Amino acid sequence: MTRLSNDYIQEIVKECRPFASSGVVADHLPGKDQSDLTNLAITIISDKGEVYSAGDDGYVFSLQSISKVINLLMALEDFGEDTVFQKVDKEPTDDFFNSISNLENYENHKPYNPMLNSGAIAVASLIKGLNVDERFGRVLTFLRTITNNDKIVLDEDVYRSEVKNGSRNRSLAYFLESLGILPYQELDAALDLYFRVNSLKVTSRDLAEIGCFLAKQGMKDGQRLIDPKHVRTTLAIMITSGMYNESGSYAVDVGFPVKSGVSGGITGVVTGELGIGIVGPAINKKGNSIAGGKALRKLSNDLNLNLFNR
Amino acid sequence: MTRLSNDYIQEIVKECRPFASSGVVADHLPGKDQSDLTNLAITIISDKGEVYSAGDDGYVFSLQSISKVINLLMALEDFGEDTVFQKVDKEPTDDFFNSISNLENYENHKPYNPMLNSGAIAVASLIKGLNVDERFGRVLTFLRTITNNDKIVLDEDVYRSEVKNGSRNRSLAYFLESLGILPYQELDAALDLYFRVNSLKVTSRDLAEIGCFLAKQGMKDGQRLIDPKHVRTTLAIMITSGMYNESGSYAVDVGFPVKSGVSGGITGVVTGELGIGIVGPAINKKGNSIAGGKALRKLSNDLNLNLFNR
Amino acid sequence: MTRLSNDYIQEIVKECRPFASSGVVADHLPGKDQSDLTNLAITIISDKGEVYSAGDDGYVFSLQSISKVINLLMALEDFGEDTVFQKVDKEPTDDFFNSISNLENYENHKPYNPMLNSGAIAVASLIKGLNVDERFGRVLTFLRTITNNDKIVLDEDVYRSEVKNGSRNRSLAYFLESLGILPYQELDAALDLYFRVNSLKVTSRDLAEIGCFLAKQGMKDGQRLIDPKHVRTTLAIMITSGMYNESGSYAVDVGFPVKSGVSGGITGVVTGELGIGIVGPAINKKGNSIAGGKALRKLSNDLNLNLFNR
Amino acid sequence: MTRLSNDYIQEIVKECRPFASSGVVADHLPGKDQSDLTNLAITIISDKGEVYSAGDDGYVFSLQSISKVINLLMALEDFGEDTVFQKVDKEPTDDFFNSISNLENYENHKPYNPMLNSGAIAVASLIKGLNVDERFGRVLTFLRTITNNDKIVLDEDVYRSEVKNGSRNRSLAYFLESLGILPYQELDAALDLYFRVNSLKVTSRDLAEIGCFLAKQGMKDGQRLIDPKHVRTTLAIMITSGMYNESGSYAVDVGFPVKSGVSGGITGVVTGELGIGIVGPAINKKGNSIAGGKALRKLSNDLNLNLFNR
Repeated sequence: MTRLSNDYIQEIVKECRPFASSGVVADHLPGKDQSDLTNLAITIISDKGEVYSAGDDGYVFSLQSISKVINLLMALEDFGEDTVFQKVDKEPTDDFFNSISNLENYENHKPYNPMLNSGAIAVASLIKGLNVDERFGRVLTFLRTITNNDKIVLDEDVYRSEVKNGSRNRSLAYFLESLGILPYQELDAALDLYFRVNSLKVTSRDLAEIGCFLAKQGMKDGQRLIDPKHVRTTLAIMITSGMYNESGSYAVDVGFPVKSGVSGGITGVVTGELGIGIVGPAINKKGNSIAGGKALRKLSNDLNLNLFNR
Repeated sequence: MTRLSNDYIQEIVKECRPFASSGVVADHLPGKDQSDLTNLAITIISDKGEVYSAGDDGYVFSLQSISKVINLLMALEDFGEDTVFQKVDKEPTDDFFNSISNLENYENHKPYNPMLNSGAIAVASLIKGLNVDERFGRVLTFLRTITNNDKIVLDEDVYRSEVKNGSRNRSLAYFLESLGILPYQELDAALDLYFRVNSLKVTSRDLAEIGCFLAKQGMKDGQRLIDPKHVRTTLAIMITSGMYNESGSYAVDVGFPVKSGVSGGITGVVTGELGIGIVGPAINKKGNSIAGGKALRKLSNDLNLNLFNR
Repeated sequence: MTRLSNDYIQEIVKECRPFASSGVVADHLPGKDQSDLTNLAITIISDKGEVYSAGDDGYVFSLQSISKVINLLMALEDFGEDTVFQKVDKEPTDDFFNSISNLENYENHKPYNPMLNSGAIAVASLIKGLNVDERFGRVLTFLRTITNNDKIVLDEDVYRSEVKNGSRNRSLAYFLESLGILPYQELDAALDLYFRVNSLKVTSRDLAEIGCFLAKQGMKDGQRLIDPKHVRTTLAIMITSGMYNESGSYAVDVGFPVKSGVSGGITGVVTGELGIGIVGPAINKKGNSIAGGKALRKLSNDLNLNLFNR
Repeated sequence: MTRLSNDYIQEIVKECRPFASSGVVADHLPGKDQSDLTNLAITIISDKGEVYSAGDDGYVFSLQSISKVINLLMALEDFGEDTVFQKVDKEPTDDFFNSISNLENYENHKPYNPMLNSGAIAVASLIKGLNVDERFGRVLTFLRTITNNDKIVLDEDVYRSEVKNGSRNRSLAYFLESLGILPYQELDAALDLYFRVNSLKVTSRDLAEIGCFLAKQGMKDGQRLIDPKHVRTTLAIMITSGMYNESGSYAVDVGFPVKSGVSGGITGVVTGELGIGIVGPAINKKGNSIAGGKALRKLSNDLNLNLFNR
């Protein structure tokens, strides 16, 4: 079996970078364009704190849908599983991430899961705080803590773009209101929080820290920040739904919980062992990093990380 | 943490049996009726061969959809992953197990996964043999081998009922033909094999043996019968899709691969450790055993079996 | 063949009123409750101006979806067919009137037709005027003109309820924005106009006048108010889509263009001959007046009004 | 207004023929290929028996889906509206002609209408006769009678192709069986009848005679062959559903009942006045003749045939 090292990761970056050419950089991300296409960074942090990193690991990008994991953890802590899963189910779906049809057609009258935009907006209404500033402050503090990175800030341009191109999400939010899931008076705040957390600036290192925090069941520097039951729940939802309608393929080929964002980031979690942070901004039609996906498959195989293979 | 013992399992059976009253016995299973409702059996076999069992473990029932796991393993061995996944995808879906809409609407023009009836019929066409008798013989031999049970035979009444009530499955098969997935000349044989394997008579012990065989990555009595890569693939598909449109809930609450059948059976796999066989014929609307599901949740919690919690 | 007379209509009212008991009064209509259930009024106006009326023809109710016909006529006049049908198609659908799934799934990326809420909101953005007050003023003037009724005013309570319960429609509007159909800056005005016209207070007489105006191809008191081509287009859309997913049944049993509203109103048009106004607030699951539907079927049969039977 | 004459029709053929180039000839029609693309024939027969014809009116093609009109008329006569509409609804849909999703999803658990393949197969089971030969004989005799054409026969090549490429229809038939609509013992006969009537060889003249027979409310040579109520029902279904998911566009632009087939034929009915038969084998994605559709629009406008414009 391959041993984890900087050289080994460097090798993976080199091998996987060319695959980026078949993807595109998401078009509503200000400051990003096709010149970012072939960026690729991989950072891995072990449960003992060893850090391995290679590629463009200084590359800064917005958190995008990996925010769904962060918000879900906080909502579970703030309101508990019963309240959260009254508003959103935990079932995988074959629908695209921004689908609204399921809200209309699913007999349970709620989003299928918190990794869909609809579910994530519902979850964003379940974070405590007097107003959206306070709520956002709490999320930001939490993220800075688990990543050891006080420099994480909002990308104002991305945030403005999220708001400006937010009609599809606003449509989802109003539909949730009509289902009785998102109270009218919470709607703007939930959307705003969702847009803000999506717009946080991170690197592959931050994503690896998130993964490592989950791999350690919610422990940070010897302190329990999140109930392990909530971590477990989040990881299970990541494995069935974290890569949208490509999740099944990742469960088979990678075999551990992963979550992607449209800016090309992926956070991976090998429970008890490793956190993985990858960024490769060239994404496929399903919204997932192409080179990042290749790299994950290689890492899983080479390092024998597949949960179903042990 | 609870220690595994016959007494402990007996306790679980006692606790979970009452939940059966909210379910129904599937109505097209000859010889089964509401008098079977409160049957419940649990058998667990460790990778070292220790057997724990309690409840109605003499209760005989038909394999039903757990056949999908057996057939998938054989098809992967016979034709390899590339050929199998050309005919069926590996993505979870929110559709019901017998859904045909996805065949019409999914852009990939194939069944979402091998745990849907449509996918299972496609897989059933990928088992080698000159004719359906030879193919069925091979599947039966394999099943008898991995369960150490030469007495497994076809339930003729169930088989006749499967054929007689088979129009929905036949409709799926012809749709597969129209998509170019199931050659016309293979259609009857694939359906017949599917119906036959569904109709095999088993007990909770047999299901536990199946689970144990998978937990040991395809080893039986020191011999490798299935490539561990194929076992791994099958387990990943089970965790995202094994309990139909209740799979997400099981991934969260149980946290290891499971597969159900409409006769109330469930096979569970704790990789490297245990195989679990449960039967409780009272099923819910989604086709899963109600008391069996309760029992699995308890076992996972008490024995700390959740993959995402370690 | 039966001759049209007040006595004859009185007879129809008497016969059809009892069917109301199987329906319900729509629950978001302020001032209406189950005590309105058995109201029924029928008014018929011939192209020569003869008026026949019976039942509760003093009963006042809100226009609701019959507004879709009025707005469509004005939009066609203001912008022409090409512009209107760039934003909304003219195809019937099996979807419910407030469906959003079709916006996501229809390959043409627009509402199926202007009789769906989604289509009607798109159409409401195509009525000229500096602001929503001016636009609403134009629609109101037009409606008052074609009904000879200067007393038609907004029902403030209904309007407030439309706004308050408007999340589903707001969700549709934002989805239209995301499709590029409804410019962001027009969204609030379009919704507001839609809500206002829905809230206009009318009687069966007013609906009959609307029908008569269309039966006369857009002529009022010797003046052409609407291009006959636009009337023709509107009538064709009414016959395929005017009664939502019950339109086919009406085309067969009634056989001339009709349009319903959730307050129980129906406008019917026998080209060149008659306008029909009916109100019966007990509606079925599809949003159509039950007693009103019975009455229409009888009228069509008795008076030989079916277009396909001549 | 234009006067109907051979010269006028000749003009229309000339004008519309070039539009064929954007279409394709359906690929499962033996003996037809792209060399047929620009064929176009128009035949119009008045209720007084005057015949106008131009273009390739000697061109022979198979009846295809226009069979749905013929079979529906016979089923209505043989079993009455109640029995027929127990098995198939009369509602338009946005689905494609060979869709199966609606059978799974429609709450009424039957095909939306008899113009869909699913509905037509259900209808084909409602034609009396001891066996399929006798049933087919009755349909053929009826068609020969109403077209005055004893030479109409089966195209054996087309029939064989229908059977060979029939999996999609067979899938629909088995789904109907599972819904309790098509008894198992009737399934093969219904499909076979459906395939046979589809395969009858006709010309534009035959289609015009069919249209004329319907325009005269089911009268042929002074004899009533079909109850006018059944004709009326069929015409209403044609106007809402006869051109599949392009029906709304035809209702608006043409404004009288029409029915198309995939071989490029269209039958049109101007009640009380005319029957129209057109063939232009270049079809669009929705299965309708392109040049034929252009011609119908022109005829409707020039001759003022739109039912909603009189």
